[in-house]
Amino acid sequence: MYGPGDVRVEERNEPRIVEPTDAVISLPATSICGSDLWPFRGLDTPDWPMPMGHEYAGIVEEVGSEVTTIEPGQFVVGSFFTSDNTCEICRAGYQSSCVRREPVGAIGTQAELARIPLADGTLVATPGVPPDELIPSFLAASDVLGTAWFGAAAAKVGPGKTVAVVGDGAVGLLGVLAARQLGAERIIAMSRHEPRQRLAREYGATDIVEERGDEGVERIKELTNGLGAHSVIEAVGTQESMMQAIRATRPGGHVGYVGVAHGVELPGEELFYSHVHLHGGPAPVRRFLPELIDLIWNGQIDPGKVFDLELPLEQAADGYEAMDERRAIKVLLRP
Amino acid sequence: MYGPGDVRVEERNEPRIVEPTDAVISLPATSICGSDLWPFRGLDTPDWPMPMGHEYAGIVEEVGSEVTTIEPGQFVVGSFFTSDNTCEICRAGYQSSCVRREPVGAIGTQAELARIPLADGTLVATPGVPPDELIPSFLAASDVLGTAWFGAAAAKVGPGKTVAVVGDGAVGLLGVLAARQLGAERIIAMSRHEPRQRLAREYGATDIVEERGDEGVERIKELTNGLGAHSVIEAVGTQESMMQAIRATRPGGHVGYVGVAHGVELPGEELFYSHVHLHGGPAPVRRFLPELIDLIWNGQIDPGKVFDLELPLEQAADGYEAMDERRAIKVLLRP
Repeated sequence: MYGPGDVRVEERNEPRIVEPTDAVISLPATSICGSDLWPFRGLDTPDWPMPMGHEYAGIVEEVGSEVTTIEPGQFVVGSFFTSDNTCEICRAGYQSSCVRREPVGAIGTQAELARIPLADGTLVATPGVPPDELIPSFLAASDVLGTAWFGAAAAKVGPGKTVAVVGDGAVGLLGVLAARQLGAERIIAMSRHEPRQRLAREYGATDIVEERGDEGVERIKELTNGLGAHSVIEAVGTQESMMQAIRATRPGGHVGYVGVAHGVELPGEELFYSHVHLHGGPAPVRRFLPELIDLIWNGQIDPGKVFDLELPLEQAADGYEAMDERRAIKVLLRP
Repeated sequence: MYGPGDVRVEERNEPRIVEPTDAVISLPATSICGSDLWPFRGLDTPDWPMPMGHEYAGIVEEVGSEVTTIEPGQFVVGSFFTSDNTCEICRAGYQSSCVRREPVGAIGTQAELARIPLADGTLVATPGVPPDELIPSFLAASDVLGTAWFGAAAAKVGPGKTVAVVGDGAVGLLGVLAARQLGAERIIAMSRHEPRQRLAREYGATDIVEERGDEGVERIKELTNGLGAHSVIEAVGTQESMMQAIRATRPGGHVGYVGVAHGVELPGEELFYSHVHLHGGPAPVRRFLPELIDLIWNGQIDPGKVFDLELPLEQAADGYEAMDERRAIKVLLRP
């Protein structure tokens, strides 16, 4: 990306092993994330030009001399921060805050090949090379599904709970799927877009709320005896969506927020009296990958459905536009 | 209180049963809370004049016709919000957000007698009428101890954890006591006042950090392999103290914040990347009262030590001044 709205596909140097803990993987497909839209819209200002892409799943081509658990030929899934998976923070389940983490976005996985540092701690192999139709789901596991799962875990979703989901992008829709898998009794999806409502229902939403902001909060309260939801997954990252999530949660309930916060300021006094639990941040997808890979491999979940537009990698710019204009939920790019 | 700095002791109408769920209790002692200093310092602007006091423990004098579990002659402890203890929010342990709650501060317990609404759900009786030397401890249980306990519970204090406590008022000091009781391995008290440091050590602090703000955060990191504490109890309520608490907590760790937030705005992006859990608010003291009463009755804890100044009720104004000037940690008033 050379600047806001300016996406170009060009030849770069071939990735190769740099550190002995690296792996190089080839990518049968790659994808655009909602968070890639922040710089596209000029709301993040990185050093231009920047490589793009941080979601990836593919075949290991080569490993460094110190890599012991990952080997060439395996199909692997990783996440947007590398992790050693051995430090105290990783062992507590927060691999995306690993003391040795590196952002994969700085490498860029909207490409045919990618170098992944800390391969042993970052990559998880699937039981075998998957059939082509499962690849979108593994690509989803790499970020949007893992992020939604963390949002649901942070919101303490579980049996008997009423869950509300703020945001109907890929993460929000997969938040509905996660809530269903984790046993939620009632799942309220907040969406005003008919095709997204349909996928939300397919993934397990029991109610749809079209209103936003404080009106949306009122509707959630009406649906919950005036109390608010037990668990709210926030998957947008704006001031409005955060306040909507906090206000829609009952006292003692949990907000799991995974939308990358932009320009958000939380009023301390309101938060204090809200009595909610607040937890979130960049999802430690690595924590959930073994479980998510199993669920996908065994056909129990189909997160790949969030990809509703597929394009050749050369047309990446069209993919960004389609997501920016909300014509597509999520775009798969084929190198 | 007639205005900032203007505390007067005067005759008011004798409290009596108004609702059939009320009790009237007589107060052998009463106390000044750190939160009473907000209006005293002009930082809260209530409708003047306002009755003062929300901490109380005493003998039941009379009960309304619908009160069934509390009876005259019992010694009882309550908290600063009344609660029915039967609604869904109460049953989830958030009695201070009870759907029928009323603030006891609007009644005022810096007095000889007080009317307590929702007596059955609010008051907890001790096993018998306690000896006089236990009364300060029961008075502490009513708010500052219960609040500290909630802060420790919200911060997920437990065995093996390193806990930091921001604030060396009565709540902070009792946060140290709570952390010790809940099995924390290491307890870092943040205080620059020698008498308070002494009480912190007596209550179980293993380390004292005198630095504040980001310097204090650096000291906590030095003491924790650069990672931060597992659990931080925030017991002040200012912007500086909240940021100090969040920054002193490791990724995946827990902040329990119980200082009443004043003028606090939390930066969403920093919070997002901090990976901390944030929970707090007005403590549901009622949840903890049975356990706290047991611990005090059996002599296992001595929270009454936070009272380092005792005055006759007529000299309440002197008590406020002593606390405002930090000459006293906490003041007991004898009617």
